[in-house]
Amino acid sequence: MGANVPAEDPDDTGHPALRGLPAVWLRANCPCGSCRDPRSGQRLVTITGLPADVTVTGVRASGAAVEVVFGPDGHRAVFDPRWLARYGGQAGEAGATPGGQDDGRTEDAKRLWAAADLGGEPPRGWWPRYLADPVHRSSCLSAVLAQGLVVLRDVPCEPGAVLAVARSLGYVRETNYGRLFEVRSEPVPANLAFTRLPIAPHTDNPYRDPVPTVQLLHCLRGAAGGGESTFADGFRAAAALRSQDPAAFVCLSSTPVTFTYADEATELRATGPMIGLDPRGRIRQIRFNERSLAPVRLPAAQARAFYAAYRAFAELISTREATVTAMLSSGDCVIVDNTRILHGRAGFTDSRGGGRRHLQGCYADLDGLASAVAVMARGHPGQPGQVDHTGEAGGAGS
Amino acid sequence: MGANVPAEDPDDTGHPALRGLPAVWLRANCPCGSCRDPRSGQRLVTITGLPADVTVTGVRASGAAVEVVFGPDGHRAVFDPRWLARYGGQAGEAGATPGGQDDGRTEDAKRLWAAADLGGEPPRGWWPRYLADPVHRSSCLSAVLAQGLVVLRDVPCEPGAVLAVARSLGYVRETNYGRLFEVRSEPVPANLAFTRLPIAPHTDNPYRDPVPTVQLLHCLRGAAGGGESTFADGFRAAAALRSQDPAAFVCLSSTPVTFTYADEATELRATGPMIGLDPRGRIRQIRFNERSLAPVRLPAAQARAFYAAYRAFAELISTREATVTAMLSSGDCVIVDNTRILHGRAGFTDSRGGGRRHLQGCYADLDGLASAVAVMARGHPGQPGQVDHTGEAGGAGS
Repeated sequence: MGANVPAEDPDDTGHPALRGLPAVWLRANCPCGSCRDPRSGQRLVTITGLPADVTVTGVRASGAAVEVVFGPDGHRAVFDPRWLARYGGQAGEAGATPGGQDDGRTEDAKRLWAAADLGGEPPRGWWPRYLADPVHRSSCLSAVLAQGLVVLRDVPCEPGAVLAVARSLGYVRETNYGRLFEVRSEPVPANLAFTRLPIAPHTDNPYRDPVPTVQLLHCLRGAAGGGESTFADGFRAAAALRSQDPAAFVCLSSTPVTFTYADEATELRATGPMIGLDPRGRIRQIRFNERSLAPVRLPAAQARAFYAAYRAFAELISTREATVTAMLSSGDCVIVDNTRILHGRAGFTDSRGGGRRHLQGCYADLDGLASAVAVMARGHPGQPGQVDHTGEAGGAGS
Repeated sequence: MGANVPAEDPDDTGHPALRGLPAVWLRANCPCGSCRDPRSGQRLVTITGLPADVTVTGVRASGAAVEVVFGPDGHRAVFDPRWLARYGGQAGEAGATPGGQDDGRTEDAKRLWAAADLGGEPPRGWWPRYLADPVHRSSCLSAVLAQGLVVLRDVPCEPGAVLAVARSLGYVRETNYGRLFEVRSEPVPANLAFTRLPIAPHTDNPYRDPVPTVQLLHCLRGAAGGGESTFADGFRAAAALRSQDPAAFVCLSSTPVTFTYADEATELRATGPMIGLDPRGRIRQIRFNERSLAPVRLPAAQARAFYAAYRAFAELISTREATVTAMLSSGDCVIVDNTRILHGRAGFTDSRGGGRRHLQGCYADLDGLASAVAVMARGHPGQPGQVDHTGEAGGAGS
């Protein structure tokens, strides 16, 4: 086997299952009961508690397992080669499980879409079936992870029902707006959401950090005229900007801007780039809300470049091609990934200024939603079913 | 005045209050009632709704204000020069308000500390005074923003009291552990926190994104032997690593790692660097928890470099010089910035394995805490009082 071992890897141990795995990696991931708690699976050893000069002094096959002896202290580890193949491969390496090891929150794990890819409307599911059928529930929530949104139909038109939807996928994030907030036209609106004006595409609450990563909006009573909801994929728009205008992409991903909100009891501000990247440069979080963007503080030339980039991104977000629309009807509940999807609404055209329309909203978080999907997948290994994109009532899931 | 204007700024208008402010900046920040909602202060115009070729066609003093006329559409804006001085200056520019405009979450806005800087113990406050005196409350919460932690004494030893502390500074973040969780030794522990073992310095729940940014721990009954709480400033440790071993700092800030947690009902994973930076390279978020770090998936040479950097950072976090300790007594409630402060505890030495000790904990978020401080500052302009660092009961605040 030694001939297969790259010479540049001095730690290589000569066993194929250990190939490319340094001694320190093997020792830090020893599964024995004194290195890892058998009940909780939590690691008991710390990096500073391990010998700084750890080496592998011996390797032998032990049935299906691989036993490793470490120097200088003689510690022994027994590894399952399947575990090594799953967790030891480098990300993206041939043979290593693609994805699945990280949290799936960057563009790499998403299905980016234009309106045509979704048939012009959001993925839809059906709340009674969602409650009764874990496969359908998993499909609906997987749509939020993959496409960034789903609309559930026939959620009971009862005040507070949106909290039950949130509770089905995680935990309600309480804010200064309460656990639950009302969206309807108000005589003296504290927020543009409560007027008859159109609302340009935006992410919610970029003036918070942590921002709520899931938004839910439940329609108790639809509008008489106008007020269609709009959705666009911010990851796709950012990726398009990167292709079309790389300098603009660099500007928006490297310039921290501040979003603010204030009322009598609250004064929130959060600072971050409009296009947030992970350390590898992958798109991970969109923050875009023109209403609450504070004045940018940049030298004049940089300010001009920023506004040009911001305009270019806003144009990509707002095209007809990028936008799916949905006229929310009573019982519809939208669930959106608020780190990715920009939502907005058309203005109201009825004489009462949209006053008839009544939504209730709340916030939750993506980590809990992904946990719910992962736990359901334990009982139903394999691919989750697909969510219906046709928008026909009762036709959801498969 | 024209002579003071840098020639390289073609948008410069010749008025000193407008110096360095491009036409698009001025137009996007027009305070008139059709550009900005007078009640909510929210911006009504969008970047795509503004003329792409906006220019300034005229400027004139209008009493204390500056009136600007824009081309090509003749729109007029009236600015208060004090507002322009406050919001128009570039960050860090002479004359511009230093800090205060962004969210204060990076190292730039913090007071980094070693143990000696705090006199060896955490800042302390006193709950009865915190409730009665907004200046003391502001001081205690400002300590969380500046130093990353505070210990409040004499919080009533009643189950659930920690939720009232959380509610005083924001909103409880519910998780799979509940709104409230218990920390005490358990016969069959699901988490190392519930054993008698020492707990190495860590941040909580790095397997969530969004991570809870504030942790609260309230001591209902102290330990009989051992179990001192330890705290270290992760921002300072990261800054020290940057000075001492720049390559290690680059490694830890540019390598996404995944943290995981699983039990019967939960499967959480979150991916990010141990040292999170903002787009300008400033330290913004520490994620460090050896118990829940998943195997890193890197080519062998990079894996070795990663483990060496991780060891160097862990050593900086764990030194006696870096660590303040506190033996929590009944009624003490610790509030920590969980994006920055690493907390841990010594092992229990009593024969009952620390079983006597009983803490209750919950999570909240920094944005709400900073909002509470900002709102209190409206009523009490000027510097908040200082929190007592001496640890003497009753001596808190000033």
